[in-house]
Amino acid sequence: MLIVMDHAASEDEIQRVVAAVEQMGLKAEPIPGGSRTAIGVLNNQGRVDDTLIRDLPGVRDIIHVSKPYKLVTRDFHPASTVVQVGDLSVGDGHPPVIMAGPCSVESEEQMLAAARAVKASGAHILRGGAFKPRTGPHSFQGLGKEGLVYLRAAGDAVGMPVITEVMRISQLDLVCRYTDILQIGARNMQNFDLLKEVGRLDVPVLLKRGMSATIEEFLAAAEYLLAEGNGRVILCERGIRTFERATRNTLDLSVVPIIRNLSHLPIIVDPSHATGQRPLVPVMGKAALVAGAHGLMIEVHPNPEKALCDGAQSLTPEGFDQLMNDIGRLMHYLNDEVSPAVNR
Amino acid sequence: MLIVMDHAASEDEIQRVVAAVEQMGLKAEPIPGGSRTAIGVLNNQGRVDDTLIRDLPGVRDIIHVSKPYKLVTRDFHPASTVVQVGDLSVGDGHPPVIMAGPCSVESEEQMLAAARAVKASGAHILRGGAFKPRTGPHSFQGLGKEGLVYLRAAGDAVGMPVITEVMRISQLDLVCRYTDILQIGARNMQNFDLLKEVGRLDVPVLLKRGMSATIEEFLAAAEYLLAEGNGRVILCERGIRTFERATRNTLDLSVVPIIRNLSHLPIIVDPSHATGQRPLVPVMGKAALVAGAHGLMIEVHPNPEKALCDGAQSLTPEGFDQLMNDIGRLMHYLNDEVSPAVNR
Amino acid sequence: MLIVMDHAASEDEIQRVVAAVEQMGLKAEPIPGGSRTAIGVLNNQGRVDDTLIRDLPGVRDIIHVSKPYKLVTRDFHPASTVVQVGDLSVGDGHPPVIMAGPCSVESEEQMLAAARAVKASGAHILRGGAFKPRTGPHSFQGLGKEGLVYLRAAGDAVGMPVITEVMRISQLDLVCRYTDILQIGARNMQNFDLLKEVGRLDVPVLLKRGMSATIEEFLAAAEYLLAEGNGRVILCERGIRTFERATRNTLDLSVVPIIRNLSHLPIIVDPSHATGQRPLVPVMGKAALVAGAHGLMIEVHPNPEKALCDGAQSLTPEGFDQLMNDIGRLMHYLNDEVSPAVNR
Amino acid sequence: MLIVMDHAASEDEIQRVVAAVEQMGLKAEPIPGGSRTAIGVLNNQGRVDDTLIRDLPGVRDIIHVSKPYKLVTRDFHPASTVVQVGDLSVGDGHPPVIMAGPCSVESEEQMLAAARAVKASGAHILRGGAFKPRTGPHSFQGLGKEGLVYLRAAGDAVGMPVITEVMRISQLDLVCRYTDILQIGARNMQNFDLLKEVGRLDVPVLLKRGMSATIEEFLAAAEYLLAEGNGRVILCERGIRTFERATRNTLDLSVVPIIRNLSHLPIIVDPSHATGQRPLVPVMGKAALVAGAHGLMIEVHPNPEKALCDGAQSLTPEGFDQLMNDIGRLMHYLNDEVSPAVNR
Repeated sequence: MLIVMDHAASEDEIQRVVAAVEQMGLKAEPIPGGSRTAIGVLNNQGRVDDTLIRDLPGVRDIIHVSKPYKLVTRDFHPASTVVQVGDLSVGDGHPPVIMAGPCSVESEEQMLAAARAVKASGAHILRGGAFKPRTGPHSFQGLGKEGLVYLRAAGDAVGMPVITEVMRISQLDLVCRYTDILQIGARNMQNFDLLKEVGRLDVPVLLKRGMSATIEEFLAAAEYLLAEGNGRVILCERGIRTFERATRNTLDLSVVPIIRNLSHLPIIVDPSHATGQRPLVPVMGKAALVAGAHGLMIEVHPNPEKALCDGAQSLTPEGFDQLMNDIGRLMHYLNDEVSPAVNR
Repeated sequence: MLIVMDHAASEDEIQRVVAAVEQMGLKAEPIPGGSRTAIGVLNNQGRVDDTLIRDLPGVRDIIHVSKPYKLVTRDFHPASTVVQVGDLSVGDGHPPVIMAGPCSVESEEQMLAAARAVKASGAHILRGGAFKPRTGPHSFQGLGKEGLVYLRAAGDAVGMPVITEVMRISQLDLVCRYTDILQIGARNMQNFDLLKEVGRLDVPVLLKRGMSATIEEFLAAAEYLLAEGNGRVILCERGIRTFERATRNTLDLSVVPIIRNLSHLPIIVDPSHATGQRPLVPVMGKAALVAGAHGLMIEVHPNPEKALCDGAQSLTPEGFDQLMNDIGRLMHYLNDEVSPAVNR
Repeated sequence: MLIVMDHAASEDEIQRVVAAVEQMGLKAEPIPGGSRTAIGVLNNQGRVDDTLIRDLPGVRDIIHVSKPYKLVTRDFHPASTVVQVGDLSVGDGHPPVIMAGPCSVESEEQMLAAARAVKASGAHILRGGAFKPRTGPHSFQGLGKEGLVYLRAAGDAVGMPVITEVMRISQLDLVCRYTDILQIGARNMQNFDLLKEVGRLDVPVLLKRGMSATIEEFLAAAEYLLAEGNGRVILCERGIRTFERATRNTLDLSVVPIIRNLSHLPIIVDPSHATGQRPLVPVMGKAALVAGAHGLMIEVHPNPEKALCDGAQSLTPEGFDQLMNDIGRLMHYLNDEVSPAVNR
Repeated sequence: MLIVMDHAASEDEIQRVVAAVEQMGLKAEPIPGGSRTAIGVLNNQGRVDDTLIRDLPGVRDIIHVSKPYKLVTRDFHPASTVVQVGDLSVGDGHPPVIMAGPCSVESEEQMLAAARAVKASGAHILRGGAFKPRTGPHSFQGLGKEGLVYLRAAGDAVGMPVITEVMRISQLDLVCRYTDILQIGARNMQNFDLLKEVGRLDVPVLLKRGMSATIEEFLAAAEYLLAEGNGRVILCERGIRTFERATRNTLDLSVVPIIRNLSHLPIIVDPSHATGQRPLVPVMGKAALVAGAHGLMIEVHPNPEKALCDGAQSLTPEGFDQLMNDIGRLMHYLNDEVSPAVNR
């Protein structure tokens, strides 16, 4: 921790801060600079509580070097985590995992048609929402339990594990009976009570980045899961909110190599929600893999023009098949990269 | 709804869109413009579902004129809503309501000292958090039920109604036993399941704007409460996330007159969380009242330098007392304004 | 300056950084923390050039405590600057200065009508644009020299100093012949060559904050003017770009007390460009004065519905007169504030 | 254009708007909707001036369908533009063009070493800044004319065309004597006077996207160049400003397929400025090519640790050589893509 003093701070004020730091059992090291003095704090274990210091006279600013997370970093867990979902491995050293399916489960037939299509093209995990977070209360909110039944049945019919979103703690038991991976959506990334409960389960979790979450906050949210004991966490970038409105959100691909460097957790990318536009999904999906993503989550609907939700960003089965062809060929390139996304 | 066609859209493509709109039982009116044709959709009730249209060939863009909310607007409810909290009235035609107290309940003594101080200075409602949403899991998370007991006791001791945050559905019964107003925090503004449950209760609610919520999303979240039957809603602006980091968030005061114009619900402002800096709190609080806010939420701590949470933005009892003095005098000015915030 | 080392940095890597700092003639002080070591750099004069250090092995991050400006701060110039414009004084201890007039000069009659109206209501400085920066080349670009002539004539007719924007260095001579204050617009805040030229003149300057400029960048831009010798600088907040589109920009009023605290330069607010909506202009203008602004810049047009530019945000003469009445009464309140915007 | 009326607008108010539109020689078509009436405006040529309408009673909002640009779109120029720089072709159907070199020219030796290195690795165009826009006035501002001389000499020595930034109109003659492509930097994207002057020249231009420019504003800025007659324009994405600070800017790769679809102009990407971090440059550069970029601009410095500017984001010659190897192999993949970035 670094305590930055005012330009005009007196020697007395500096000494008072030093004394306060030492009362906390830590060491303080004044660092006179060009126009002001800073005071380094030494020997701390983790983030220092600055409540006793920040209001002392002459203190201008406090800069924390320690971060609000620890378990998710490579500092304390250098080896990459590979999350197992049945036989599938998600993470470093494994081919990218493709999760595909409709935004929301609409009927038994729709889910089965979607499952057969994405399986045939080579997807690994089937997605489908039964509980839908919608901006306004007057929009379609999902089929609920019925949707879970259809999703599971479709996954079993084609032999694919499934993923679906959970929105509230009281749904956890129900959803866990039907899904292989729990998805925590962007709007719930800081629903800390939900994170804690999911952290106590032994089930893989996909945690989506909040629309306006910094990387620091994203990792701190994942830390809630690990702190409760659940280390089977897959992160997911899905676009952030910026001033640009030409896309639904701004896909922030730089987050992929950054997080792969900072954290041992795998990270995938959802280009469907990020862009909100079908023609952008394949191209941004492939760019995400080149950026180092461990997988993709792609919306595919057997009849996008009849989708009850997010049809405009869903690929057709044909479009998805083309994408999977491209990905197959792109892998040849990626396997021999000279300067890969992350030094391994 | 307006359907914008490609510059190169053919007459056939235009006719196909017109036919699709008419199949939905609506009227379509082509509007040839300078470089492209647009098609107006008539006779709709509320927002039109565009799934059958957006993928037709030649369609470039769809512009919705209807909004994802209705009950919160003055269109359908022209008179201003005044929310009653016991004897207190929050809303148009009533003096601004001041909610004050510590960020989190820390002890019986702390709450009582805070309650006495803010009551003496003229605050109307006592605030204090028992359940705290914190970015990382290693920070103080609140006293829980014990905190509710202390908050209630302090409120009763000085004769003030109290407000506290609820973070999860399973806490609702407990929290309702102790509080007069339920607060839904910024991170939960789109926790739609929580909104629905609170919408079924007959208790006043303070709904904070999400850190990156547009005004449209903010009102759509309030619509969830009204759609379930709870119209006792107070909105609260608390700063949005922008590129500027000199303040914790960017206080967006323009939202106050905009929402007073669009909606019949009262709106207050929280300058403590918005700025994150004690010296800015009084000045921005007063600016908020001039902007037309129906009240303020202010963090006050008997000993800010010992606060377990957000001490850097808490006023001292003395600072709060000065602010209340200023507000009293500012009211003389506001009561005689020539060009008030909103045309009434 | 603080150099943050990797968690896994070796003692050798730390010593190599220390040696590099000492080669620069500075002192290095290792500060071992909970999970990593930081190295404080001492005895520097101003911002340290970190090029020799940032690439050394084991270095994770470098935190600069010194800022890219100095002359604009109270650290080196504690007394508030009052900018003189003829007889008018802009800054601490003087009544707020109101600059008013149309967005762009359209004709001799329009300018004269505007000048008479704003003068009658009590404005101090007449504004009007002769050179207009417009997003697209197909919009009205201003009357140029003719506009300057009308502006000056109107100002002289009613006895008001005038302000107008300069967009390029080659216009400087011409514009200076007609104006009392040079305005540098938001889009030119980082047109450093223009800043340097204006910095060499002895004429008051109004520098508008760039749409996406941080406070640090805003002050660094002003530093360009002061560094060349021109200290007659008035800063102007006019809204920043955020995700919210309900207003043209997001008016960031917290910047007013922050800058008054950091800098000795006066700061005014332009609520017309910030909000883009006539009904919001008076209310946000008054809020700005309560936030501590040293003045306002307000668009007023004799016939807003016929304005060639920004009519939707221009006040009518009647609306402006009401605002000036309110401001007059608000001053009674502000003169006796208990807890003013800035501790003086 | 669509005029949205208030929910409570009377039939009289609607008729008054219709009459105003017809007075402008256009047709008006009322479109009654669910909760309000909208009025479509027909037969306009380009963007309609709404000044006579927006202030009429009952008008709530005006939605423009026409954009502030025209010449840059495929609507009026369907075929892709290929910009010639000597023998080099930049645009559709040609291999990506790699521009590489140091951020700023520092000496004859440095430029020559850089030129030899990037040429040896296969770069096509040599970059180097002689005039540098810097946030604060106390930073290195470039060598000026001397820098131009070194840049040109180095380009000639190795047989590469060169690109350098121009910051002011009065430098145009000088810079044009030394460079093959004029670069207009992000801070000058809306320096409209500079754009107009450059638009009158017959020289290729690289126009960088402003830090907070929407795609609409970016294309409108390019429109200034085309409107004056210079159609040899290459666009360049270089990151936008968002709340995320883990990278210098947020690289917005979705802009590449969007602009390739909307506009006939080529677009390249600068991952060095966007990320600000050396380890991210190669990975984001390759992702940009997969996203459809027509080229890259990469900072390469013979000794990054001694760079006077932006050393932290400069590749070493070795790192650049690895990247070029990867790009060579990536091209095999891209040439056979099944679902390319843009439908051609």
